[in-house]
Amino acid sequence: MLDPRLNIINKKLSEIKKIIVISSGKGGVGKSLIASTMALLFAKEGFKTGLLDLDFTSPTTHVVLNARNLKPKEDKGIVPPEIYGVKYMSLIFYLGDQISPLRGSELSNALLEILAVTQWGGLDILLIDMPPGISDLMLDVLKYMRDANFLIVTSSSKMSFETVRKLLMLLKDLNAVVIGVIENIKMADSTYIKREVEALGESFLGEIHFDEKLEETLGKIEKLLETNFAKEVENISIRVKEICMGDLQKKKMGRKIM
Amino acid sequence: MLDPRLNIINKKLSEIKKIIVISSGKGGVGKSLIASTMALLFAKEGFKTGLLDLDFTSPTTHVVLNARNLKPKEDKGIVPPEIYGVKYMSLIFYLGDQISPLRGSELSNALLEILAVTQWGGLDILLIDMPPGISDLMLDVLKYMRDANFLIVTSSSKMSFETVRKLLMLLKDLNAVVIGVIENIKMADSTYIKREVEALGESFLGEIHFDEKLEETLGKIEKLLETNFAKEVENISIRVKEICMGDLQKKKMGRKIM
Repeated sequence: MLDPRLNIINKKLSEIKKIIVISSGKGGVGKSLIASTMALLFAKEGFKTGLLDLDFTSPTTHVVLNARNLKPKEDKGIVPPEIYGVKYMSLIFYLGDQISPLRGSELSNALLEILAVTQWGGLDILLIDMPPGISDLMLDVLKYMRDANFLIVTSSSKMSFETVRKLLMLLKDLNAVVIGVIENIKMADSTYIKREVEALGESFLGEIHFDEKLEETLGKIEKLLETNFAKEVENISIRVKEICMGDLQKKKMGRKIM
Repeated sequence: MLDPRLNIINKKLSEIKKIIVISSGKGGVGKSLIASTMALLFAKEGFKTGLLDLDFTSPTTHVVLNARNLKPKEDKGIVPPEIYGVKYMSLIFYLGDQISPLRGSELSNALLEILAVTQWGGLDILLIDMPPGISDLMLDVLKYMRDANFLIVTSSSKMSFETVRKLLMLLKDLNAVVIGVIENIKMADSTYIKREVEALGESFLGEIHFDEKLEETLGKIEKLLETNFAKEVENISIRVKEICMGDLQKKKMGRKIM
């Protein structure tokens, strides 16, 4: 039987112009920091921006955004709180530290529920922070959000790219739209990742260097936005907009002129 | 209905003296490197050691051990190849780069299958490298390996410990045996992780510093064992043996004297 939430979800997703899914396969490569920072930068630029943390069992964007104690409002669904202009949604609002491991079907169900109840209220961009691993949830995201664009993050290590390669091959098999690959936590000069990405026929979007000051900015958004990390994320955001948001960009420029 | 493999699995697991599950919740904190290095060190010391990579969708221990092209033998089941004395098993032998995302029940099934068919042939220690996330598979490991001992890895970052904290609380709820917590990729002086671990009533097993030379030793075992990283893993191994392998240690010493 078709889930009755699917109609509601399709209607809700149709009010979002671009969905960008930040994924890696590998954990600990900086997905959550990049997703949060990029969302803050897009919002600052005037885009109506949402950030959805789908890393159900190990969410961390609330640590970056100091959002643990915020509360969504209930109004014909759930209205996400706004942080520096970003509409923010995470299961952490409901589960806190008492997160239970969810089995496959429960994960699908939690995803459907969060997509059905969240009142984004019309967005230019929704950024989604994915869990590590090539998981159930990625299959569901591909199933329910057919217009999703994948932005892939890797570290410079072969250990990380080993998994990212598999993810890229899988996304290609599934005809998913891949914007490109970001190399994060870069420490040494090397073109290994760039070469490997381009050999797979994907776009290399740029590198973000290890920034030792990042840890102390966790939860302090203004300080985060002053880091070199944020500047490098901004450079990549420009390329992301060029590649996948051409139409959106023009409309926004149009609005500015009027 | 009870899975007929369960009897076989129980018999096989009863031939393994200690099972140590290396887990984190968080990805990218060095679980696979620590699991592989610790296995090599235990084997070098004379323990009959196995290493099982259960990170089905993003396995990487074969990168550390340069094991991609090894082949297990078939002989009344699957006999794992030996690498520097470590009996090594990973789905990578069967799936290569073409890994498909496995749904929850398929993961459980793959775990049961690998436990049922692998002929470890009697082990002192089986180290298991877990996937990131508080996943289905962790519930299954707890279900099928009731004597498992959990060794938890975190990086120094709050982003990492946010998830590790949840994992530790869950393992406590489930009455699982936790050996303790290792702080890996340490860069700056800080007692944050140690304090947090001890506040949760768990043992802090020590820290392993970031080692920039580690990347170039991937796939080169002798070079890996010469790194500072390996020396620090060895110090922690000593504590692990003290805590959870007292009996084993005595027996081994007995054997040496005889």
